[in-house]
Amino acid sequence: MSENSTFDAVVLKELNKPLELIKGIQFPALKSGQTLIKIFYAGLCHSQVMEARGHRGKDPYLPHMLGHEGTGEVVAVGDGVTKVAPGDYVVMTWIKGTGQEAGGCCYAGPSGETINSGGVTTFGEYAVVSENRLVRKPDGIPFDLGVLLGCALPTGAGIVLNDIKPAKGAKIAVIGLGGIGISALLAATTFDPTVLIAVDIEQSKLDLAREFGATHVFHASKDDWEAEILALTDGKGVDHAVEATGLAEMIERSFNVIRPGGGELVFASHPKAGDMIRLDPFELIKGKKIRGSWGGSSKPDRDLEILADLFRKGHLPLERLLSNTYTLHTINEALEDLENRKIIRALIKINEPPADAA
Amino acid sequence: MSENSTFDAVVLKELNKPLELIKGIQFPALKSGQTLIKIFYAGLCHSQVMEARGHRGKDPYLPHMLGHEGTGEVVAVGDGVTKVAPGDYVVMTWIKGTGQEAGGCCYAGPSGETINSGGVTTFGEYAVVSENRLVRKPDGIPFDLGVLLGCALPTGAGIVLNDIKPAKGAKIAVIGLGGIGISALLAATTFDPTVLIAVDIEQSKLDLAREFGATHVFHASKDDWEAEILALTDGKGVDHAVEATGLAEMIERSFNVIRPGGGELVFASHPKAGDMIRLDPFELIKGKKIRGSWGGSSKPDRDLEILADLFRKGHLPLERLLSNTYTLHTINEALEDLENRKIIRALIKINEPPADAA
Repeated sequence: MSENSTFDAVVLKELNKPLELIKGIQFPALKSGQTLIKIFYAGLCHSQVMEARGHRGKDPYLPHMLGHEGTGEVVAVGDGVTKVAPGDYVVMTWIKGTGQEAGGCCYAGPSGETINSGGVTTFGEYAVVSENRLVRKPDGIPFDLGVLLGCALPTGAGIVLNDIKPAKGAKIAVIGLGGIGISALLAATTFDPTVLIAVDIEQSKLDLAREFGATHVFHASKDDWEAEILALTDGKGVDHAVEATGLAEMIERSFNVIRPGGGELVFASHPKAGDMIRLDPFELIKGKKIRGSWGGSSKPDRDLEILADLFRKGHLPLERLLSNTYTLHTINEALEDLENRKIIRALIKINEPPADAA
Repeated sequence: MSENSTFDAVVLKELNKPLELIKGIQFPALKSGQTLIKIFYAGLCHSQVMEARGHRGKDPYLPHMLGHEGTGEVVAVGDGVTKVAPGDYVVMTWIKGTGQEAGGCCYAGPSGETINSGGVTTFGEYAVVSENRLVRKPDGIPFDLGVLLGCALPTGAGIVLNDIKPAKGAKIAVIGLGGIGISALLAATTFDPTVLIAVDIEQSKLDLAREFGATHVFHASKDDWEAEILALTDGKGVDHAVEATGLAEMIERSFNVIRPGGGELVFASHPKAGDMIRLDPFELIKGKKIRGSWGGSSKPDRDLEILADLFRKGHLPLERLLSNTYTLHTINEALEDLENRKIIRALIKINEPPADAA
């Protein structure tokens, strides 16, 4: 199955504590629909920050192996797996695609203790992943950038490509320039918006957004960005707003900058468990729309190839989204840097990928 | 212009005071796009209760002539009016259709004081109405029942026919059985829902709903209706909920009974100014949808004929929605009876319509 008899992985043992690197985890026998993946790179998303900090509420799966996006190589497959075979290079994603849903996995730790994971996990040297969370890695996508295909890109770009489908010349605002927001912004540029507004609290991200094609950028705490957006749109508001900060308050404020009579706010934000959004029902009656997006309504088997094609054509400078590389040993720094909005997305290098395959 | 030189109308002079019958109002000269209508019947909607009780906030138009639905006869038309001519029988509606938008009107009261109205008003013997708030009365609709074509029916039935367009066999819940809710329920029956649930606080309305085709009825305060609806739908929730109580809390609770992954709540409720609804953003991410409806997205010029056809075919027993008839002298009783949910909709008889025209 592998050159090793055990492997190392990072585990959340207790909420609000650092992740712990556990050595000597046993390879479980694969069940039907499961695959064993050697992980090259994992991405770290705000979702893992929220989970580790307890903002998703109680975690019934502790000790819990986290991570929901990555790239790797198929090492072995369980019964009935037809989508991939050993030796295939894959993208791992939390968004369900075709193939069996094999559910989560239980691993035996070095002292025989049980460690749990969901249908996908990526914070280990190896991981058992459900067939439906894998897509063959598209050609021409480097393994490091490929982690973005597992979450940020299908969600952020998917919101634009699948949920919004903007008309050419639309007025669009993106609020929150993490991996999802930046991906949405990049996708939006391909629709030639007349106005493309970016809002964030980090000047460096606003500068990047402008470089990527934002026509206007506003600092979330220094500018009166809601008033600025209304002023830019004859007092009406934009046609589409994408909210990706993870904060309930910002969902509410983003609802203020869409136009009555058809303006729509789409958010992928998943605020702290229990945080509610407050809306004025009359604004909905006046035709403002709001919806949450589940992974940009992406179908990974269809959409990863579409996104890869945008990358190959030069529309998605993904290398600009991954500034720092971490390891399983420094993954807690990655959590902190992401939490403090120092980086757009954290890249965790786990195993050296083959040099000749991209 | 008319056999009279002045006319009487009911006016809101002060918030939270009874409406006042003012005699001796002068006929204003008609401006472009305006029409003068002799009113036969007016309907009284919760909106007028909300306005009169100050729940829409400050009213900058006091003294204000209210009413937004009715039937009558065109007496005179201003410049450029082509949609109707003197002698035409019409339905008045607040929902804008084709024709000129002539804005509101100012009348001189008996002491020369200014009385204001919007583009439509119906609580007087005569009223100046904007061309775009008129539709010729469909054949076969009696003048009394015709008031329902001005608001309750296009809004309530329109939510089903225009906003929801349910698939045959869908599971539908209607919460709040006023004029809009009952109209939605009646329209829903024409789509053969497998489950059609009605919720209200008045047993008499629940009985009526069952008679009209509701498969299940729940008392809003005696039954645990949210749990009952979930139990009826394998714990998932209905495909469509129509909320029409006018209460923010009921919008929130109705959001609990739609299914994740595409279930939609449509509300026409217009709660008190400032009342907000609180939603869990993760429920939206899981694919629950919510939208407000502006008059059931009805286009009066198209939809009133469709609704009249449903009536002529026997699908809309409109006479059951109008139990009590009031006059301009007893209109404050109508407000109270509607406010106390004793009636579904109040009918105000103002002028005797021609006996031979229906």
